[in-house]
Amino acid sequence: MNLNRETALKMNQKPNSADAPASFDLPGYLDRQRRMVNQRLEKCLQDHKTVNPATSRLHDAMHYSLMSGGKRLRPVLCLAAAECAGDGLSEPVIRMACALEMIHTYSLVHDDLPAMDDDELRRGRATCHIRFDEATAVLAGDALLTLAFEILSAPSPEADMDGLPPSIQLQIIAIIARAAGHRGMIEGQMLDMLAQGKTDTSLESLRNIHERKTGRMIEAAVVCGALAGNATDDGIEALKKYARCIGLAFQVADDILNVEGDPMAMGKATGTDQKRRKATYPSLMGLEQSKIFAAEQVANALQSLSIFDNKADPLRALARYIIERKR
Amino acid sequence: MNLNRETALKMNQKPNSADAPASFDLPGYLDRQRRMVNQRLEKCLQDHKTVNPATSRLHDAMHYSLMSGGKRLRPVLCLAAAECAGDGLSEPVIRMACALEMIHTYSLVHDDLPAMDDDELRRGRATCHIRFDEATAVLAGDALLTLAFEILSAPSPEADMDGLPPSIQLQIIAIIARAAGHRGMIEGQMLDMLAQGKTDTSLESLRNIHERKTGRMIEAAVVCGALAGNATDDGIEALKKYARCIGLAFQVADDILNVEGDPMAMGKATGTDQKRRKATYPSLMGLEQSKIFAAEQVANALQSLSIFDNKADPLRALARYIIERKR
Repeated sequence: MNLNRETALKMNQKPNSADAPASFDLPGYLDRQRRMVNQRLEKCLQDHKTVNPATSRLHDAMHYSLMSGGKRLRPVLCLAAAECAGDGLSEPVIRMACALEMIHTYSLVHDDLPAMDDDELRRGRATCHIRFDEATAVLAGDALLTLAFEILSAPSPEADMDGLPPSIQLQIIAIIARAAGHRGMIEGQMLDMLAQGKTDTSLESLRNIHERKTGRMIEAAVVCGALAGNATDDGIEALKKYARCIGLAFQVADDILNVEGDPMAMGKATGTDQKRRKATYPSLMGLEQSKIFAAEQVANALQSLSIFDNKADPLRALARYIIERKR
Repeated sequence: MNLNRETALKMNQKPNSADAPASFDLPGYLDRQRRMVNQRLEKCLQDHKTVNPATSRLHDAMHYSLMSGGKRLRPVLCLAAAECAGDGLSEPVIRMACALEMIHTYSLVHDDLPAMDDDELRRGRATCHIRFDEATAVLAGDALLTLAFEILSAPSPEADMDGLPPSIQLQIIAIIARAAGHRGMIEGQMLDMLAQGKTDTSLESLRNIHERKTGRMIEAAVVCGALAGNATDDGIEALKKYARCIGLAFQVADDILNVEGDPMAMGKATGTDQKRRKATYPSLMGLEQSKIFAAEQVANALQSLSIFDNKADPLRALARYIIERKR
């Protein structure tokens, strides 16, 4: 057994109680945060509803894709980072969390399109273009992306109470736009499509794809939560490092789930990567080594949180959850 | 000849010199503004270029669609509104003008997709999905929309010199996002698609479609230019009215060009609306009445500019250009 494996296995079996206290109730926390995010997403859609009955189909498609039982990982990370930074939850942070989920959902709707990944099932339900039609799916994706920026730029109703300074709000919009754009998430999807069917994808290329496709938005969620929570510069740097590690761990864990996950729990087929001969961490470094690598990333993420007190407990628990989740 | 026609014809033939002085050189003005916008768009793309050679295809598709010789109507209107408001052109206004053109271009790229309007020709060239492929066109559109918000939220390099207050910058982002979103431009495209093939579209429905599909973004361009130019509340109200009138005139003129325009000058086929049995102003109110209606809108637009001095001359000339253009 090499040192890597030893570290990783130790971490998996005997969590350092200072890093992630056993007393922290992650399921309860996730349940509360998700419920809050879901309620606010419903409210966002309701508040921005079109009055024209002719376009209820567009609204329905946005609602269908957004409220389809996702893990809400990005919003939960954003909220946890704001809590960790110190200022706790405020109206603008919750709105930001909703905007992040809208951008994530738009990217799934467009990635699922026939011209892209051509997926018919997502989160156990028909994908947007199957349930509605392709044109509606393109527009619903466009609309969710645009609504995210509308929400991010909205003036805070309680600006005097817990509103963000406009300059910070602008900084947050710029960070999210950059992470979601053609040098971030969109570039990742482009690289992913170009890599499909290729048999010579290197580990470096794979990491490069995922850093863009999922990593940048996870980092943006954490950093923007920290900014909104009024974190110090050191705090933001530490949280950025945390986010990069869990972003990578998240993708490795996703690849592992595609090999040995339970299709029922995941709401989608497994084994599809291998069938498509897609380069993944398990295919390039083996299943066991992939698990160790993911655990190492989580250990690094926990390490970078060492400057924080127990306000970082949700982030610590979330880091573990990333590789322990069943879907 | 009824009164409407008389008014309109008079307006077409003998412009009131107080409203639009013959001395104003619109072709020269348009040429200068378009050249500036094109240079800045090139610079925006260059500044935000991806370093990964694998994704040069994505960048090429964004560049191809953005730099395809469009009229640059929205940026020119935005710049002219800022000049009219008083503070003249500043770095943030020029950037805003570029962002507006990116959003306009993204909407064309997505509207041209096979699942939507299925157009193969745009501005005399192959549409994005024909020149590249469908997946690249979806992503290039997504990327242009996202880049627009990145540019709109960027801190001004000369914030002390002519930068906008962050609160105004946020207000501008919110206005543009709302105009471009599912209760604006995207709703318009949805309504337009739902109306295709229908034979019972009313004039009211047609106006409703176009108000959303093109009107809202034209209004946003003018209002945001005015806000950035530090217009008074009265000034903004007047410019909003101006924008609504020319937005409507623009669409009527577009429909008229589809009937009697020169395909060479327009870079696209004419007569297509009739072939597709699409409801248009000429099909619903007749060609002559459509011309009168457009001219009336332009007269109303000019009327709403009466509170401004000669700083509004470019906007006055642009209002006339809307219905006199050949493409």
